[in-house]
Amino acid sequence: MYDVLIIGSGPAGLTAGIFAVRRNLKTLVLNDSESLSQTDEASIVDDWPGIMGIKGPELMDKFREHAKKIGVEIKQEKVNKIAKIKDGFEVTNTDYKYKAKSIIIATGSKHRKGLVKGEEKFSGKGVSYCATCDGPLFKGKKVLVLGGGDTAVTYAILLDQIGAETCLVHRRDKLRATESWQKKIFKTGVKIYWDTVCIEIKGDEFVKSAVLKNKKTGETKEVPVDGVFVALGTIPTSELAKDIGLKIDKSGYIIVDREQKTNVPGVFAAGDCCDNPAKKIVTAAGDGGVAAESAYFYLQEEK
Amino acid sequence: MYDVLIIGSGPAGLTAGIFAVRRNLKTLVLNDSESLSQTDEASIVDDWPGIMGIKGPELMDKFREHAKKIGVEIKQEKVNKIAKIKDGFEVTNTDYKYKAKSIIIATGSKHRKGLVKGEEKFSGKGVSYCATCDGPLFKGKKVLVLGGGDTAVTYAILLDQIGAETCLVHRRDKLRATESWQKKIFKTGVKIYWDTVCIEIKGDEFVKSAVLKNKKTGETKEVPVDGVFVALGTIPTSELAKDIGLKIDKSGYIIVDREQKTNVPGVFAAGDCCDNPAKKIVTAAGDGGVAAESAYFYLQEEK
Repeated sequence: MYDVLIIGSGPAGLTAGIFAVRRNLKTLVLNDSESLSQTDEASIVDDWPGIMGIKGPELMDKFREHAKKIGVEIKQEKVNKIAKIKDGFEVTNTDYKYKAKSIIIATGSKHRKGLVKGEEKFSGKGVSYCATCDGPLFKGKKVLVLGGGDTAVTYAILLDQIGAETCLVHRRDKLRATESWQKKIFKTGVKIYWDTVCIEIKGDEFVKSAVLKNKKTGETKEVPVDGVFVALGTIPTSELAKDIGLKIDKSGYIIVDREQKTNVPGVFAAGDCCDNPAKKIVTAAGDGGVAAESAYFYLQEEK
Repeated sequence: MYDVLIIGSGPAGLTAGIFAVRRNLKTLVLNDSESLSQTDEASIVDDWPGIMGIKGPELMDKFREHAKKIGVEIKQEKVNKIAKIKDGFEVTNTDYKYKAKSIIIATGSKHRKGLVKGEEKFSGKGVSYCATCDGPLFKGKKVLVLGGGDTAVTYAILLDQIGAETCLVHRRDKLRATESWQKKIFKTGVKIYWDTVCIEIKGDEFVKSAVLKNKKTGETKEVPVDGVFVALGTIPTSELAKDIGLKIDKSGYIIVDREQKTNVPGVFAAGDCCDNPAKKIVTAAGDGGVAAESAYFYLQEEK
């Protein structure tokens, strides 16, 4: 029986783990190795205080190293179900079963997928959701990045740096990305298709072209491309929440209070899966710290 | 006229500054150079994710360097008053006057002082509130640390490492510090006076002795010491809040919501001066990030 079982190992989950171990709680972090955290996919991070610019995976390596050194037990196992049992919770997959007195859900968010015709068909065959992971394959090639937020803009900057001929496709006439990233992309060679959406990705075995539609003029054109990076937003990974009756909002975010408590006693949530007001690395880490402290005090009261 | 003026340059204030500049806001951070942040006084930090152990001032140097590199303007000026003016706020001292459209208060907390007879008289003459700053002066000498929380325990561990003959004086029979620090202090040579309070600090020009009283037996004794480190808790630095009618709770903490908004539109608060549920470096930094994002959206709406 663990004191606290943390589901997810992004900035929120690992910070929760570090704080829980510091409180001498028997702690387990479960990580779904098939689902990278947003930070692990970030091409460049410059809003983690104390480090001006660092690749996302390098920052996460620092988190993981800290967590391991301090004694956080981390297992690479996906969770399929959480159930309430006497004295706590049971977390299961087909292969294993863990019991814990309290749970912190820190499952983050995942890419919004399937908005473009052909996107699923060519996934892994020219369609990618992670420029940090797949960008280097496209050096000297033509790529599109779909989206206008931080992820899309930083992906485009990275791909341009890698030496891909990069175009950004954004449905509006103004980027949604943080102003500092906007400044940076305007200094690169990235071409931006404004007021434009990608309506189809075509190819044979691999991506060969994309069909773009200008939303203002209605005009469509087919452009030859080797890769399409899709960054059309994220949705919270909160399916597990439903098993134990957690309240979620209409967008799927787990509803928590300032102590990261959900409506179910003993269950806390932290980071991008919950309805916190800012979705940033340091705010997720802060949430994780608060969630672990709240779990600690919950366990003290239960004693 | 600044877009956002941030009062305080601890983890909350500097993170708010970094986030505000990334949002292209005209940003000023004012720092009272006579009042060090708790982190700047921390002997060792091991709960800042990604770094297993770092001296507090070194961590703050990283924050300051990041803030400066990204373009945060920081001035060493204490604020005496905040006033509401048309279109924003005016922040003043006897020497200067700044105007800003929004304010983030990140003034942290300060040492609880004056609980012990003689404490004030010998302040700077053997009585200290910062082992990180003054510890090295006491190598080979006898010191007491008063308190049982994280600050007291980490101070005692540091003083022991420095080579001071260190005793901890704690009014209860159990430490309040995080369990991981408790484990560490029990491995050192630090002697702990349980159920004991220091009722008087005596000396001539400098501290010479301290009078300890056992709360259970009522017994008192005078012990010869060269230094007394006082770590009997902190109180929020929230005096400025009163100028503009911010709601504060009965302990003096500024009341904020999850978006770090106070009851006065355009005024936000972050870190240890507000009623956040955990008083940790990463939670303060997270607060700062949220406060800056909230200030940004407030300014967007005001436009």
